[in-house]
Amino acid sequence: MPDLLTSEELEAKLREVGAERYHHRHPFQIRLQSGQCSRGEVEAWALNRYLYQACIPRKDAAILSRMDDVALRREWRQRIVDHDGDHDGDGGIARWLKLTDDLGLDREAVMSGRLALPATKFAVTAYLTFVREQSLLAAVASSLTELFSPSVIQVRTAGMLAHYDYVTPATLAYFTRRPIQAKRDSDCALAFVKAHARTPEQQQDVVAALEFKCAMLWSMLDALEHAYVYAKPAPGAFEPADLGERLAAA
Amino acid sequence: MPDLLTSEELEAKLREVGAERYHHRHPFQIRLQSGQCSRGEVEAWALNRYLYQACIPRKDAAILSRMDDVALRREWRQRIVDHDGDHDGDGGIARWLKLTDDLGLDREAVMSGRLALPATKFAVTAYLTFVREQSLLAAVASSLTELFSPSVIQVRTAGMLAHYDYVTPATLAYFTRRPIQAKRDSDCALAFVKAHARTPEQQQDVVAALEFKCAMLWSMLDALEHAYVYAKPAPGAFEPADLGERLAAA
Repeated sequence: MPDLLTSEELEAKLREVGAERYHHRHPFQIRLQSGQCSRGEVEAWALNRYLYQACIPRKDAAILSRMDDVALRREWRQRIVDHDGDHDGDGGIARWLKLTDDLGLDREAVMSGRLALPATKFAVTAYLTFVREQSLLAAVASSLTELFSPSVIQVRTAGMLAHYDYVTPATLAYFTRRPIQAKRDSDCALAFVKAHARTPEQQQDVVAALEFKCAMLWSMLDALEHAYVYAKPAPGAFEPADLGERLAAA
Repeated sequence: MPDLLTSEELEAKLREVGAERYHHRHPFQIRLQSGQCSRGEVEAWALNRYLYQACIPRKDAAILSRMDDVALRREWRQRIVDHDGDHDGDGGIARWLKLTDDLGLDREAVMSGRLALPATKFAVTAYLTFVREQSLLAAVASSLTELFSPSVIQVRTAGMLAHYDYVTPATLAYFTRRPIQAKRDSDCALAFVKAHARTPEQQQDVVAALEFKCAMLWSMLDALEHAYVYAKPAPGAFEPADLGERLAAA
């Protein structure tokens, strides 16, 4: 068992996990933001990631349901509002559907998840199971990937606008608000984790929770890369219109 | 909604799902049984699949816990005995550890799961979640991949013995008993499913459950193929000793 870290050392350790394991280093992420993705790959990315976006309010509600502290619950519930919005067409999930709409994907097909890769669904299920079954401390810590998201969003948005002529600022409206929300949310979660991880075991759980979450995001990009770049989609999954053409050219 | 099928038509539909989606068609499975896998790939397969093997008694206990019928519970509990055995060193999980032992893998590392791919863990979690949260009928139907396992076991065992000089019949002891157990188990599960899927909706749930299970097994091989054939392991996952060498030669 490692030594007890100061809260500054714990934060440094968490930032180290992000530097090594967050999906800004994933080859598919780099492919996406540098303009190397085919239209079909961008579609597959948006279609699959929808399932992750759609699970966020349920994930946050599961965490909220485990919190005893009223003040903390008041802060945490804003995450649900941000993603579900106040009316039809409002909120992060609706803004993600603007992206899939603009890519020409059928909204019913996207929302049903029936064309998504099984591995995407399993990753999302694992995330929901994690926040329900692990400690509240670990569940909160698993949200700390938001420490690293603002810089990735900036690079990806700029890259997608520069390289894909079918992507406009309106298409990527989801990402406009995320950096400010992510900063506010990760400040809250980081303060909670630093205050409540008071033993080496708890600190280790916190680090493992962030590693789990990084692995979950990483595995979704692995599945996309496997299905649409290296190999082929699992039986029943989305086949982009240009897939046959692209495979023939390879 | 489709029409109500006769029980023979339902069985035919389930066998069609297996023909199209069971992992006997997966490129990594074919690679493994035809002698194309490196030693490291065989190790990674055994190491990752251990987590699936190890979850089986918990999966079956979750299903058992939902059964009202004493006679059915008496049949189903045999699955737990088969995998957990009667004493240390006995049972399917112990026989799987004989395989990982013979491959030279550290038993503690295998059992801890810490070198397994995150996608393997997520698939296993999704399977456990499925049998807990879906209907009992769907949970039972998800076991029906055993309808297809005996033929795959035969081809894989013969292929591995023919092609890998470090694999002996004793190494593959796990597979010796499985065909008879799988036949008995799938007879029981198929009879249950045919008797209880009495509406088109229930029949559709049964088919979807088998598709889910096929996708779960398929995704574990996708993850292996991605990590050890096409790309590279997720951060923190098992790196076979010969991986660097093999990548350099590619």
